[in-house]
Amino acid sequence: MEHEINLPEVVAEVTAAFMRYEAALTGNDVAVLDELFWNNPNTLRYGAGENLLGYEAIRAFRLERPSKGLERDLMHTVITTYGRDYATANTEFTRKGETRIGRQSHTWLRLPQGWRIVAAHVSLMSA
Amino acid sequence: MEHEINLPEVVAEVTAAFMRYEAALTGNDVAVLDELFWNNPNTLRYGAGENLLGYEAIRAFRLERPSKGLERDLMHTVITTYGRDYATANTEFTRKGETRIGRQSHTWLRLPQGWRIVAAHVSLMSA
Repeated sequence: MEHEINLPEVVAEVTAAFMRYEAALTGNDVAVLDELFWNNPNTLRYGAGENLLGYEAIRAFRLERPSKGLERDLMHTVITTYGRDYATANTEFTRKGETRIGRQSHTWLRLPQGWRIVAAHVSLMSA
Repeated sequence: MEHEINLPEVVAEVTAAFMRYEAALTGNDVAVLDELFWNNPNTLRYGAGENLLGYEAIRAFRLERPSKGLERDLMHTVITTYGRDYATANTEFTRKGETRIGRQSHTWLRLPQGWRIVAAHVSLMSA
């Protein structure tokens, strides 16, 4: 029940996974986005305008995703690891033409196939 | 790296912690709300209208919190546990006078002192 917080090599792994996800998101690499979510009915993603319960719902949503205007800037990113298999990655972001501040929360789990997102929540902060 | 998902006794523990948090939230029991967040600078909470980085920022926010109109109804609650020490709890909610659907995401960690929230994200879904 004692967890080693922020072991440097674990933080490095999760940061790499997080950055890979960010590149896929802004580059619209749907295959990588799909890969990095845990393929499981328990996986969920609350988006700015939709609630997606289960991996299949997330995958279906990605197929319909707009492919333009995806660039964004991250701020105040906080990646925290708990032991060797568990992590949270939270960040604020801004996007051109959107005055509200975005927030993205990921919970990551290390599985045999690699680090995967098991829960995600994206929203725009209310004024 | 293999995690036993949703061990019944672990799900029961996290569900109890989750319900205790919900009762404290709607009953404005600030002491319990404070207790259930991990007392650590890495803890963060994105609220509907604020981004709180660190336990102290969350605690200061609670002190200023309105104490009325807190009742809400939960929908589609999904609690998932990974091994014995990690869990996510996600739920949608509705509140009287608010037409938008709310979403609350918690990442829970078992510490020697009990289950604690290490990251939270609350938002209202954009229309």
